[in-house]
Amino acid sequence: MTTTVARCIEQRFGIPPSDGVRDAPARPGEAALVRILERRTHRRYRDEPVDEALVETLLACALSASSKSDLQQASVVRVRDPGSRSEIASWLPAMPWIGEAPVFFVFCGDNLRLRRAAALRGKPFPNDNVDMFMNAAVDAALAMQTFTVAAEAAGLGCCPISEVRTHIDRLTELLALPAGVFPIAGLCVGWPEREGFVSMRLPPALAVHEDVYDATGVEEKIDAYDRRRDARYRIPAERQREVERFGTADFYGWSEDKTRQYSRPARPGFRAYLRRQGFALR
Amino acid sequence: MTTTVARCIEQRFGIPPSDGVRDAPARPGEAALVRILERRTHRRYRDEPVDEALVETLLACALSASSKSDLQQASVVRVRDPGSRSEIASWLPAMPWIGEAPVFFVFCGDNLRLRRAAALRGKPFPNDNVDMFMNAAVDAALAMQTFTVAAEAAGLGCCPISEVRTHIDRLTELLALPAGVFPIAGLCVGWPEREGFVSMRLPPALAVHEDVYDATGVEEKIDAYDRRRDARYRIPAERQREVERFGTADFYGWSEDKTRQYSRPARPGFRAYLRRQGFALR
Repeated sequence: MTTTVARCIEQRFGIPPSDGVRDAPARPGEAALVRILERRTHRRYRDEPVDEALVETLLACALSASSKSDLQQASVVRVRDPGSRSEIASWLPAMPWIGEAPVFFVFCGDNLRLRRAAALRGKPFPNDNVDMFMNAAVDAALAMQTFTVAAEAAGLGCCPISEVRTHIDRLTELLALPAGVFPIAGLCVGWPEREGFVSMRLPPALAVHEDVYDATGVEEKIDAYDRRRDARYRIPAERQREVERFGTADFYGWSEDKTRQYSRPARPGFRAYLRRQGFALR
Repeated sequence: MTTTVARCIEQRFGIPPSDGVRDAPARPGEAALVRILERRTHRRYRDEPVDEALVETLLACALSASSKSDLQQASVVRVRDPGSRSEIASWLPAMPWIGEAPVFFVFCGDNLRLRRAAALRGKPFPNDNVDMFMNAAVDAALAMQTFTVAAEAAGLGCCPISEVRTHIDRLTELLALPAGVFPIAGLCVGWPEREGFVSMRLPPALAVHEDVYDATGVEEKIDAYDRRRDARYRIPAERQREVERFGTADFYGWSEDKTRQYSRPARPGFRAYLRRQGFALR
Protein backbone atom coordinates (compact mmCIF):
# COMPACT_ATOMS: atom_id res chain seq x y z
CA MET A 1 0.00 0.00 0.00
CA THR A 2 2.82 2.44 0.68
CA THR A 3 4.02 2.21 -2.89
CA THR A 4 0.92 4.38 -3.33
CA VAL A 5 2.30 6.98 -0.93
CA ALA A 6 5.70 6.85 -2.62
CA ARG A 7 4.09 7.26 -6.04
CA CYS A 8 2.05 10.24 -4.82
CA ILE A 9 5.10 11.95 -3.35
CA GLU A 10 6.99 11.41 -6.59
CA GLN A 11 4.06 12.88 -8.46
CA ARG A 12 3.94 15.90 -6.12
CA PHE A 13 7.63 16.79 -6.41
CA GLY A 14 8.86 15.01 -9.51
CA ILE A 15 11.41 13.38 -7.19
CA PRO A 16 11.02 10.02 -5.46
CA PRO A 17 10.82 9.95 -1.66
CA SER A 18 13.38 8.23 0.54
CA ASP A 19 13.64 4.44 0.57
CA GLY A 20 12.12 4.60 4.05
CA VAL A 21 8.82 5.81 2.64
CA ARG A 22 8.83 3.17 -0.05
CA ASP A 23 9.61 0.40 2.44
CA ALA A 24 7.31 1.54 5.25
CA PRO A 25 4.41 -0.73 6.16
CA ALA A 26 0.87 0.40 5.52
CA ARG A 27 -0.47 2.50 8.36
CA PRO A 28 -3.79 3.75 9.70
CA GLY A 29 -5.06 6.84 7.95
CA GLU A 30 -3.03 6.16 4.84
CA ALA A 31 -6.03 6.72 2.57
CA ALA A 32 -6.42 10.22 4.02
CA LEU A 33 -2.73 10.96 3.46
CA VAL A 34 -2.96 9.75 -0.13
CA ARG A 35 -5.98 11.98 -0.72
CA ILE A 36 -4.04 14.99 0.57
CA LEU A 37 -0.91 14.10 -1.40
CA GLU A 38 -3.05 13.87 -4.54
CA ARG A 39 -5.07 17.00 -3.86
CA ARG A 40 -5.58 19.43 -6.69
CA THR A 41 -7.45 22.58 -7.57
CA HIS A 42 -10.78 22.16 -9.39
CA ARG A 43 -12.19 25.04 -11.39
CA ARG A 44 -14.87 23.26 -13.42
CA TYR A 45 -17.90 21.73 -11.74
CA ARG A 46 -20.75 19.48 -12.69
CA ASP A 47 -24.16 21.15 -12.86
CA GLU A 48 -25.23 19.58 -9.60
CA PRO A 49 -25.95 21.29 -6.30
CA VAL A 50 -24.06 20.68 -3.07
CA ASP A 51 -26.68 19.80 -0.49
CA GLU A 52 -27.13 22.18 2.39
CA ALA A 53 -26.47 19.58 5.08
CA LEU A 54 -23.04 18.99 3.57
CA VAL A 55 -22.30 22.72 3.35
CA GLU A 56 -23.28 23.16 6.99
CA THR A 57 -21.08 20.22 8.00
CA LEU A 58 -18.08 21.51 6.05
CA LEU A 59 -18.44 24.96 7.60
CA ALA A 60 -18.44 23.27 11.01
CA CYS A 61 -15.22 21.53 9.92
CA ALA A 62 -13.75 24.92 8.94
CA LEU A 63 -14.57 26.32 12.38
CA SER A 64 -12.92 23.25 13.94
CA ALA A 65 -9.53 24.42 12.66
CA SER A 66 -6.77 25.50 15.00
CA SER A 67 -7.02 29.11 16.11
CA LYS A 68 -4.20 31.30 17.43
CA SER A 69 -4.65 31.44 21.24
CA ASP A 70 -8.31 30.44 20.80
CA LEU A 71 -9.00 34.03 19.70
CA GLN A 72 -11.15 32.68 16.82
CA GLN A 73 -10.53 35.43 14.30
CA ALA A 74 -11.97 33.75 11.19
CA SER A 75 -15.30 34.47 9.51
CA VAL A 76 -16.89 33.20 6.33
CA VAL A 77 -19.33 35.00 4.07
CA ARG A 78 -21.28 32.70 1.79
CA VAL A 79 -22.31 34.54 -1.35
CA ARG A 80 -25.65 33.04 -2.43
CA ASP A 81 -27.45 36.00 -3.95
CA PRO A 82 -27.23 35.54 -7.74
CA GLY A 83 -26.80 39.28 -8.30
CA SER A 84 -23.84 39.41 -5.92
CA ARG A 85 -22.28 36.34 -7.48
CA SER A 86 -22.64 37.76 -10.98
CA GLU A 87 -21.17 41.03 -9.88
CA ILE A 88 -18.06 39.43 -8.35
CA ALA A 89 -17.72 37.23 -11.43
CA SER A 90 -17.94 40.29 -13.69
CA TRP A 91 -14.84 41.80 -12.03
CA LEU A 92 -12.76 38.73 -12.91
CA PRO A 93 -13.82 37.61 -16.40
CA ALA A 94 -10.75 35.35 -16.71
CA MET A 95 -12.20 33.21 -13.89
CA PRO A 96 -15.71 32.25 -15.00
CA TRP A 97 -15.79 29.54 -12.30
CA ILE A 98 -16.53 32.29 -9.76
CA GLY A 99 -19.98 32.69 -11.26
CA GLU A 100 -20.44 29.01 -12.12
CA ALA A 101 -19.41 27.23 -8.92
CA PRO A 102 -22.39 25.79 -7.02
CA VAL A 103 -21.07 27.32 -3.80
CA PHE A 104 -18.90 30.38 -3.26
CA PHE A 105 -17.46 31.75 -0.04
CA VAL A 106 -15.23 34.61 1.01
CA PHE A 107 -12.98 33.75 3.94
CA CYS A 108 -12.11 36.69 6.16
CA GLY A 109 -9.83 37.64 9.00
CA ASP A 110 -12.12 38.99 11.70
CA ASN A 111 -11.08 41.10 14.60
CA LEU A 112 -14.49 42.73 15.16
CA ARG A 113 -15.61 40.20 17.75
CA LEU A 114 -12.52 40.67 19.94
CA ARG A 115 -12.94 44.44 19.86
CA ARG A 116 -16.62 44.17 20.68
CA ALA A 117 -15.82 41.72 23.47
CA ALA A 118 -13.24 44.12 24.91
CA ALA A 119 -15.86 46.88 25.01
CA LEU A 120 -18.45 44.48 26.44
CA ARG A 121 -16.09 43.38 29.21
CA GLY A 122 -14.66 46.84 29.87
CA LYS A 123 -11.09 45.99 28.86
CA PRO A 124 -8.51 48.08 27.01
CA PHE A 125 -7.50 46.91 23.54
CA PRO A 126 -3.83 47.80 23.01
CA ASN A 127 -3.20 45.19 20.33
CA ASP A 128 -4.00 46.94 17.09
CA ASN A 129 -0.70 45.92 15.55
CA VAL A 130 0.80 43.80 12.77
CA ASP A 131 0.96 40.74 15.03
CA MET A 132 -2.81 40.83 15.55
CA PHE A 133 -3.45 41.40 11.85
CA MET A 134 -1.32 38.40 10.97
CA ASN A 135 -3.09 36.26 13.56
CA ALA A 136 -6.44 37.10 11.99
CA ALA A 137 -5.19 36.34 8.47
CA VAL A 138 -3.66 33.07 9.68
CA ASP A 139 -6.88 32.03 11.45
CA ALA A 140 -8.82 32.62 8.23
CA ALA A 141 -6.28 30.53 6.30
CA LEU A 142 -6.43 27.69 8.82
CA ALA A 143 -10.23 27.63 8.51
CA MET A 144 -10.17 27.80 4.71
CA GLN A 145 -7.68 24.97 4.39
CA THR A 146 -9.61 22.80 6.83
CA PHE A 147 -12.76 23.44 4.80
CA THR A 148 -10.88 22.49 1.64
CA VAL A 149 -9.40 19.25 2.97
CA ALA A 150 -12.80 18.24 4.39
CA ALA A 151 -14.59 19.11 1.15
CA GLU A 152 -12.09 17.06 -0.83
CA ALA A 153 -12.65 14.09 1.50
CA ALA A 154 -16.35 14.36 0.63
CA GLY A 155 -15.51 14.28 -3.09
CA LEU A 156 -15.85 18.00 -3.77
CA GLY A 157 -13.32 20.18 -5.52
CA CYS A 158 -12.27 23.69 -4.50
CA CYS A 159 -10.51 26.69 -5.97
CA PRO A 160 -9.29 29.57 -3.79
CA ILE A 161 -9.64 33.01 -5.39
CA SER A 162 -7.22 35.47 -3.83
CA GLU A 163 -7.85 37.71 -6.85
CA VAL A 164 -11.05 38.94 -5.18
CA ARG A 165 -8.68 41.20 -3.25
CA THR A 166 -7.81 42.98 -6.46
CA HIS A 167 -11.31 44.48 -6.20
CA ILE A 168 -11.27 44.86 -2.48
CA ASP A 169 -13.20 48.10 -2.10
CA ARG A 170 -16.07 46.82 -4.23
CA LEU A 171 -16.02 43.46 -2.46
CA THR A 172 -16.02 45.09 0.96
CA GLU A 173 -19.01 47.22 0.01
CA LEU A 174 -20.90 44.33 -1.60
CA LEU A 175 -20.44 42.06 1.43
CA ALA A 176 -20.86 44.97 3.87
CA LEU A 177 -17.64 43.98 5.65
CA PRO A 178 -17.43 46.16 8.75
CA ALA A 179 -14.32 47.60 10.39
CA GLY A 180 -12.17 44.78 11.75
CA VAL A 181 -12.95 42.39 8.90
CA PHE A 182 -10.95 41.82 5.69
CA PRO A 183 -11.04 39.10 3.03
CA ILE A 184 -8.12 36.75 2.51
CA ALA A 185 -9.63 34.83 -0.43
CA GLY A 186 -12.76 33.56 -2.11
CA LEU A 187 -13.38 29.82 -2.42
CA CYS A 188 -15.28 28.09 -5.24
CA VAL A 189 -16.72 24.69 -4.30
CA GLY A 190 -18.49 22.06 -6.39
CA TRP A 191 -18.46 18.51 -7.72
CA PRO A 192 -15.45 18.25 -10.03
CA GLU A 193 -16.21 17.91 -13.70
CA ARG A 194 -12.71 16.83 -14.66
CA GLU A 195 -9.96 14.80 -13.11
CA GLY A 196 -7.73 17.84 -12.70
CA PHE A 197 -3.99 17.57 -12.25
CA VAL A 198 -1.54 17.53 -9.38
CA SER A 199 0.52 20.71 -9.30
CA MET A 200 4.21 19.96 -8.92
CA ARG A 201 5.64 21.63 -5.83
CA LEU A 202 9.04 23.02 -4.90
CA PRO A 203 10.97 20.09 -3.41
CA PRO A 204 11.48 19.51 0.31
CA ALA A 205 15.15 20.36 -0.31
CA LEU A 206 13.97 23.96 -0.79
CA ALA A 207 11.05 24.14 1.62
CA VAL A 208 12.06 21.92 4.56
CA HIS A 209 15.11 22.70 6.68
CA GLU A 210 16.75 20.90 9.56
CA ASP A 211 17.67 22.93 12.65
CA VAL A 212 18.78 25.94 10.63
CA TYR A 213 17.47 27.50 7.44
CA ASP A 214 19.73 26.46 4.59
CA ALA A 215 19.70 28.91 1.68
CA THR A 216 22.63 27.37 -0.18
CA GLY A 217 22.02 26.55 -3.80
CA VAL A 218 18.56 28.12 -3.91
CA GLU A 219 19.05 29.28 -7.50
CA GLU A 220 20.21 25.86 -8.72
CA LYS A 221 17.35 24.13 -6.93
CA ILE A 222 14.81 26.55 -8.41
CA ASP A 223 16.27 26.01 -11.86
CA ALA A 224 16.14 22.22 -11.48
CA TYR A 225 12.53 22.51 -10.30
CA ASP A 226 11.65 24.64 -13.32
CA ARG A 227 13.02 21.92 -15.57
CA ARG A 228 11.30 19.02 -13.80
CA ARG A 229 8.04 20.88 -13.90
CA ASP A 230 8.44 21.82 -17.55
CA ALA A 231 9.14 18.20 -18.43
CA ARG A 232 5.85 17.22 -16.79
CA TYR A 233 3.79 20.12 -18.13
CA ARG A 234 5.04 22.84 -20.44
CA ILE A 235 3.39 26.24 -20.13
CA PRO A 236 2.08 26.98 -23.65
CA ALA A 237 3.89 29.78 -25.49
CA GLU A 238 0.68 31.79 -25.79
CA ARG A 239 0.39 31.87 -21.99
CA GLN A 240 3.70 33.59 -21.45
CA ARG A 241 3.11 36.80 -19.48
CA GLU A 242 4.35 40.29 -20.24
CA VAL A 243 5.90 39.40 -23.59
CA GLU A 244 5.82 43.07 -24.59
CA ARG A 245 8.21 43.81 -21.71
CA PHE A 246 10.32 40.69 -21.54
CA GLY A 247 9.91 39.03 -24.93
CA THR A 248 9.10 35.40 -25.59
CA ALA A 249 11.31 33.09 -23.57
CA ASP A 250 12.74 29.95 -25.14
CA PHE A 251 12.53 28.27 -21.79
CA TYR A 252 9.58 29.48 -19.72
CA GLY A 253 9.51 27.70 -16.37
CA TRP A 254 7.80 28.32 -13.04
CA SER A 255 10.29 30.95 -11.90
CA GLU A 256 10.15 32.84 -15.19
CA ASP A 257 6.35 32.81 -14.98
CA LYS A 258 6.11 33.83 -11.33
CA THR A 259 8.75 36.55 -11.53
CA ARG A 260 7.00 38.00 -14.59
CA GLN A 261 3.71 37.86 -12.69
CA TYR A 262 5.28 39.62 -9.70
CA SER A 263 7.16 42.15 -11.85
CA ARG A 264 4.18 44.50 -11.55
CA PRO A 265 2.87 45.73 -8.22
CA ALA A 266 0.04 43.51 -6.99
CA ARG A 267 -2.49 45.24 -4.77
CA PRO A 268 -0.17 48.02 -3.57
CA GLY A 269 -3.22 49.63 -1.93
CA PHE A 270 -3.81 46.78 0.49
CA ARG A 271 -2.15 48.54 3.42
CA ALA A 272 -4.27 51.67 2.90
CA TYR A 273 -7.36 49.45 2.63
CA LEU A 274 -6.57 47.68 5.90
CA ARG A 275 -6.14 51.02 7.61
CA ARG A 276 -9.52 52.13 6.31
CA GLN A 277 -10.92 48.88 7.74
CA GLY A 278 -9.63 49.90 11.14
CA PHE A 279 -6.29 48.09 11.30
CA ALA A 280 -3.54 50.45 12.47
CA LEU A 281 -0.81 47.89 11.56
CA ARG A 282 1.47 49.38 14.23
CA MET B 1 -24.17 7.26 10.64
CA THR B 2 -24.97 10.95 10.36
CA THR B 3 -26.20 11.06 13.91
CA THR B 4 -22.44 10.92 14.49
CA VAL B 5 -21.93 14.08 12.45
CA ALA B 6 -24.82 15.79 14.23
CA ARG B 7 -23.40 14.79 17.61
CA CYS B 8 -19.94 16.09 16.66
CA ILE B 9 -21.35 19.43 15.52
CA GLU B 10 -23.31 19.74 18.74
CA GLN B 11 -20.13 18.96 20.66
CA ARG B 12 -18.18 21.57 18.70
CA PHE B 13 -20.63 24.42 19.22
CA GLY B 14 -22.81 23.36 22.14
CA ILE B 15 -25.73 23.85 19.75
CA PRO B 16 -27.33 21.13 17.63
CA PRO B 17 -27.06 21.41 13.84
CA SER B 18 -30.08 21.81 11.56
CA ASP B 19 -32.50 18.94 11.10
CA GLY B 20 -31.07 18.58 7.61
CA VAL B 21 -27.73 17.42 9.02
CA ARG B 22 -29.40 15.00 11.38
CA ASP B 23 -31.57 13.55 8.62
CA ALA B 24 -28.93 13.42 5.88
CA PRO B 25 -27.91 10.02 4.59
CA ALA B 26 -24.41 8.74 5.24
CA ARG B 27 -21.99 9.95 2.59
CA PRO B 28 -18.53 9.14 1.27
CA GLY B 29 -15.74 10.65 3.31
CA GLU B 30 -17.89 10.95 6.42
CA ALA B 31 -15.23 9.36 8.63
CA ALA B 32 -12.80 12.10 7.58
CA LEU B 33 -15.36 14.79 8.35
CA VAL B 34 -16.03 13.28 11.76
CA ARG B 35 -12.30 13.20 12.49
CA ILE B 36 -12.03 16.91 11.63
CA LEU B 37 -15.17 17.81 13.61
CA GLU B 38 -13.69 16.00 16.62
CA ARG B 39 -10.20 17.38 16.23
CA ARG B 40 -8.44 18.71 19.31
CA THR B 41 -5.10 20.01 20.47
CA HIS B 42 -2.75 17.50 22.09
CA ARG B 43 0.03 18.72 24.36
CA ARG B 44 1.05 15.47 26.08
CA TYR B 45 2.64 12.66 24.11
CA ARG B 46 3.59 9.06 24.71
CA ASP B 47 7.30 8.36 24.93
CA GLU B 48 7.37 6.85 21.48
CA PRO B 49 9.08 8.19 18.36
CA VAL B 50 7.33 9.18 15.15
CA ASP B 51 9.01 7.23 12.40
CA GLU B 52 10.89 9.20 9.78
CA ALA B 53 8.92 7.84 6.83
CA LEU B 54 5.75 9.22 8.39
CA VAL B 55 7.35 12.61 9.08
CA GLU B 56 8.55 12.79 5.48
CA THR B 57 5.07 11.87 4.22
CA LEU B 58 3.34 14.44 6.42
CA LEU B 59 5.73 17.16 5.25
CA ALA B 60 4.86 16.20 1.68
CA CYS B 61 1.20 16.60 2.68
CA ALA B 62 1.98 20.06 4.10
CA LEU B 63 3.59 21.09 0.83
CA SER B 64 0.51 19.79 -1.02
CA ALA B 65 -1.58 22.59 0.52
CA SER B 66 -3.07 25.35 -1.58
CA SER B 67 -0.69 28.20 -2.28
CA LYS B 68 -1.60 31.76 -3.23
CA SER B 69 -1.02 32.07 -7.01
CA ASP B 70 1.32 29.05 -6.84
CA LEU B 71 3.95 31.39 -5.35
CA GLN B 72 4.77 28.71 -2.72
CA GLN B 73 5.79 30.98 0.12
CA ALA B 74 5.85 28.42 2.96
CA SER B 75 8.90 26.84 4.58
CA VAL B 76 9.30 24.51 7.53
CA VAL B 77 12.25 24.24 9.90
CA ARG B 78 12.38 20.99 11.83
CA VAL B 79 14.18 21.49 15.12
CA ARG B 80 15.94 18.19 15.90
CA ASP B 81 19.08 19.31 17.68
CA PRO B 82 18.49 18.63 21.40
CA GLY B 83 20.32 21.80 22.38
CA SER B 84 18.11 23.93 20.16
CA ARG B 85 14.97 22.23 21.41
CA SER B 86 15.98 22.75 25.04
CA GLU B 87 16.76 26.35 24.38
CA ILE B 88 13.38 27.09 22.79
CA ALA B 89 11.67 25.18 25.60
CA SER B 90 13.58 27.23 28.19
CA TRP B 91 12.05 30.45 26.84
CA LEU B 92 8.51 29.14 27.44
CA PRO B 93 8.56 27.21 30.72
CA ALA B 94 4.75 27.18 30.89
CA MET B 95 4.76 24.97 27.79
CA PRO B 96 6.97 21.97 28.65
CA TRP B 97 5.55 20.07 25.66
CA ILE B 98 7.85 22.13 23.42
CA GLY B 99 10.80 20.23 24.84
CA GLU B 100 8.97 16.93 25.23
CA ALA B 101 7.21 16.49 21.89
CA PRO B 102 8.83 13.80 19.73
CA VAL B 103 8.81 16.18 16.75
CA PHE B 104 8.88 19.96 16.65
CA PHE B 105 8.66 22.28 13.66
CA VAL B 106 8.60 26.00 13.05
CA PHE B 107 6.38 26.97 10.12
CA CYS B 108 7.52 30.10 8.28
CA GLY B 109 6.34 32.53 5.66
CA ASP B 110 9.10 32.57 3.05
CA ASN B 111 9.62 35.21 0.45
CA LEU B 112 13.34 34.56 -0.02
CA ARG B 113 12.83 32.17 -2.94
CA LEU B 114 10.72 34.63 -4.93
CA ARG B 115 13.29 37.39 -4.43
CA ARG B 116 16.13 35.09 -5.42
CA ALA B 117 14.14 33.92 -8.42
CA ALA B 118 13.53 37.53 -9.50
CA ALA B 119 17.28 38.20 -9.36
CA LEU B 120 18.00 34.92 -11.16
CA ARG B 121 15.57 35.75 -13.95
CA GLY B 122 16.49 39.45 -14.16
CA LYS B 123 13.08 40.76 -13.13
CA PRO B 124 12.16 43.73 -10.95
CA PHE B 125 10.51 43.00 -7.60
CA PRO B 126 8.06 45.83 -6.84
CA ASN B 127 5.90 43.80 -4.44
CA ASP B 128 7.46 44.34 -1.08
CA ASN B 129 4.14 45.30 0.47
CA VAL B 130 1.57 44.18 3.04
CA ASP B 131 -0.27 42.10 0.45
CA MET B 132 2.83 39.99 -0.20
CA PHE B 133 3.54 39.65 3.51
CA MET B 134 0.00 38.42 4.12
CA ASN B 135 0.27 35.96 1.23
CA ALA B 136 3.42 34.46 2.76
CA ALA B 137 1.81 34.18 6.22
CA VAL B 138 -1.30 32.62 4.69
CA ASP B 139 0.75 30.10 2.70
CA ALA B 140 2.54 29.04 5.88
CA ALA B 141 -0.81 28.65 7.65
CA LEU B 142 -2.28 26.58 4.80
CA ALA B 143 0.74 24.26 4.97
CA MET B 144 0.64 23.98 8.76
CA GLN B 145 -3.05 23.16 8.87
CA THR B 146 -2.68 20.57 6.11
CA PHE B 147 0.15 18.98 8.08
CA THR B 148 -2.04 18.95 11.18
CA VAL B 149 -5.10 17.40 9.53
CA ALA B 150 -2.91 14.76 7.87
CA ALA B 151 -1.08 14.02 11.13
CA GLU B 152 -4.38 13.62 12.95
CA ALA B 153 -5.59 11.20 10.28
CA ALA B 154 -2.48 9.11 11.04
CA GLY B 155 -3.36 9.13 14.74
CA LEU B 156 -0.91 11.81 15.84
CA GLY B 157 -1.73 14.86 17.93
CA CYS B 158 -0.46 18.39 17.35
CA CYS B 159 -0.17 21.67 19.23
CA PRO B 160 0.64 24.93 17.45
CA ILE B 161 2.89 27.28 19.42
CA SER B 162 2.46 30.86 18.26
CA GLU B 163 4.19 31.93 21.49
CA VAL B 164 7.55 31.22 19.85
CA ARG B 165 7.05 34.65 18.29
CA THR B 166 7.28 36.23 21.72
CA HIS B 167 10.99 35.37 21.50
CA ILE B 168 11.33 36.13 17.84
CA ASP B 169 14.82 37.60 17.77
CA ARG B 170 16.31 34.64 19.63
CA LEU B 171 14.34 32.20 17.48
CA THR B 172 15.44 33.90 14.28
CA GLU B 173 19.06 33.71 15.36
CA LEU B 174 18.81 30.11 16.56
CA LEU B 175 17.21 28.91 13.30
CA ALA B 176 19.35 31.27 11.19
CA LEU B 177 16.25 32.59 9.44
CA PRO B 178 17.50 34.82 6.62
CA ALA B 179 15.90 38.00 5.28
CA GLY B 180 12.56 37.17 3.67
CA VAL B 181 11.67 34.46 6.21
CA PHE B 182 9.59 34.83 9.39
CA PRO B 183 7.95 32.29 11.72
CA ILE B 184 4.19 32.10 12.07
CA ALA B 185 4.16 29.32 14.71
CA GLY B 186 5.87 26.26 16.12
CA LEU B 187 4.15 22.87 15.96
CA CYS B 188 4.53 20.05 18.49
CA VAL B 189 3.74 16.58 17.11
CA GLY B 190 3.51 13.19 18.82
CA TRP B 191 1.36 10.22 19.73
CA PRO B 192 -1.32 11.55 22.11
CA GLU B 193 -1.03 10.37 25.68
CA ARG B 194 -4.53 11.46 26.64
CA GLU B 195 -7.90 11.66 24.98
CA GLY B 196 -7.88 15.46 24.99
CA PHE B 197 -11.04 17.50 24.65
CA VAL B 198 -12.91 19.24 21.89
CA SER B 199 -12.69 23.02 22.26
CA MET B 200 -16.10 24.65 21.94
CA ARG B 201 -16.14 27.18 19.12
CA LEU B 202 -18.03 30.39 18.49
CA PRO B 203 -21.25 29.39 16.76
CA PRO B 204 -21.88 29.65 13.01
CA ALA B 205 -24.36 32.44 13.88
CA LEU B 206 -21.28 34.57 14.71
CA ALA B 207 -18.74 33.25 12.23
CA VAL B 208 -20.75 32.41 9.09
CA HIS B 209 -22.67 35.10 7.20
CA GLU B 210 -24.94 34.95 4.20
CA ASP B 211 -24.36 37.48 1.41
CA VAL B 212 -23.57 40.30 3.79
CA TYR B 213 -21.70 40.40 7.09
CA ASP B 214 -24.25 40.58 9.90
CA ALA B 215 -22.89 42.18 13.06
CA THR B 216 -26.22 42.49 14.84
CA GLY B 217 -26.35 41.05 18.32
CA VAL B 218 -22.63 40.23 18.47
CA GLU B 219 -22.47 41.02 22.19
CA GLU B 220 -25.48 38.86 23.05
CA LYS B 221 -24.14 35.99 20.96
CA ILE B 222 -20.72 36.23 22.62
CA ASP B 223 -22.34 36.26 26.03
CA ALA B 224 -24.45 33.21 25.21
CA TYR B 225 -21.33 31.44 23.93
CA ASP B 226 -19.49 32.27 27.15
CA ARG B 227 -22.28 30.64 29.13
CA ARG B 228 -22.55 27.53 26.96
CA ARG B 229 -18.81 27.06 27.15
CA ASP B 230 -18.72 27.64 30.89
CA ALA B 231 -21.46 25.05 31.39
CA ARG B 232 -19.32 22.51 29.52
CA TYR B 233 -16.01 23.45 31.10
CA ARG B 234 -15.50 26.11 33.76
CA ILE B 235 -12.14 27.88 33.76
CA PRO B 236 -10.77 27.28 37.29
CA ALA B 237 -10.64 30.37 39.51
CA GLU B 238 -6.86 30.03 39.92
CA ARG B 239 -6.44 30.37 36.14
CA GLN B 240 -8.08 33.78 35.93
CA ARG B 241 -5.64 36.21 34.32
CA GLU B 242 -4.60 39.64 35.54
CA VAL B 243 -6.51 39.45 38.83
CA GLU B 244 -4.31 42.21 40.24
CA ARG B 245 -5.66 44.55 37.54
CA PHE B 246 -9.21 43.32 37.11
CA GLY B 247 -10.01 41.37 40.28
CA THR B 248 -11.52 37.91 40.48
CA ALA B 249 -14.59 37.62 38.29
CA ASP B 250 -17.66 35.78 39.54
CA PHE B 251 -18.35 34.70 36.00
CA TYR B 252 -15.19 34.16 33.98
CA GLY B 253 -16.06 33.09 30.45
CA TRP B 254 -14.20 32.97 27.15
CA SER B 255 -14.61 36.66 26.41
CA GLU B 256 -13.50 37.71 29.89
CA ASP B 257 -10.44 35.47 29.53
CA LYS B 258 -9.51 36.56 26.01
CA THR B 259 -10.03 40.26 26.62
CA ARG B 260 -7.88 40.04 29.76
CA GLN B 261 -5.25 38.20 27.73
CA TYR B 262 -5.35 40.88 25.03
CA SER B 263 -5.46 43.76 27.54
CA ARG B 264 -1.67 43.91 27.39
CA PRO B 265 0.24 44.50 24.17
CA ALA B 266 1.26 41.20 22.59
CA ARG B 267 4.40 41.36 20.49
CA PRO B 268 4.23 45.09 19.71
CA GLY B 269 7.70 44.76 18.16
CA PHE B 270 6.58 42.41 15.41
CA ARG B 271 6.39 45.13 12.76
CA ALA B 272 9.93 46.31 13.57
CA TYR B 273 11.09 42.69 13.46
CA LEU B 274 9.54 42.12 10.04
CA ARG B 275 11.23 45.23 8.74
CA ARG B 276 14.58 43.96 10.01
CA GLN B 277 13.81 40.70 8.19
CA GLY B 278 13.51 42.67 4.97
CA PHE B 279 9.76 43.25 4.73
CA ALA B 280 8.98 46.88 3.95
CA LEU B 281 5.24 46.36 4.65
CA ARG B 282 4.39 49.19 2.27
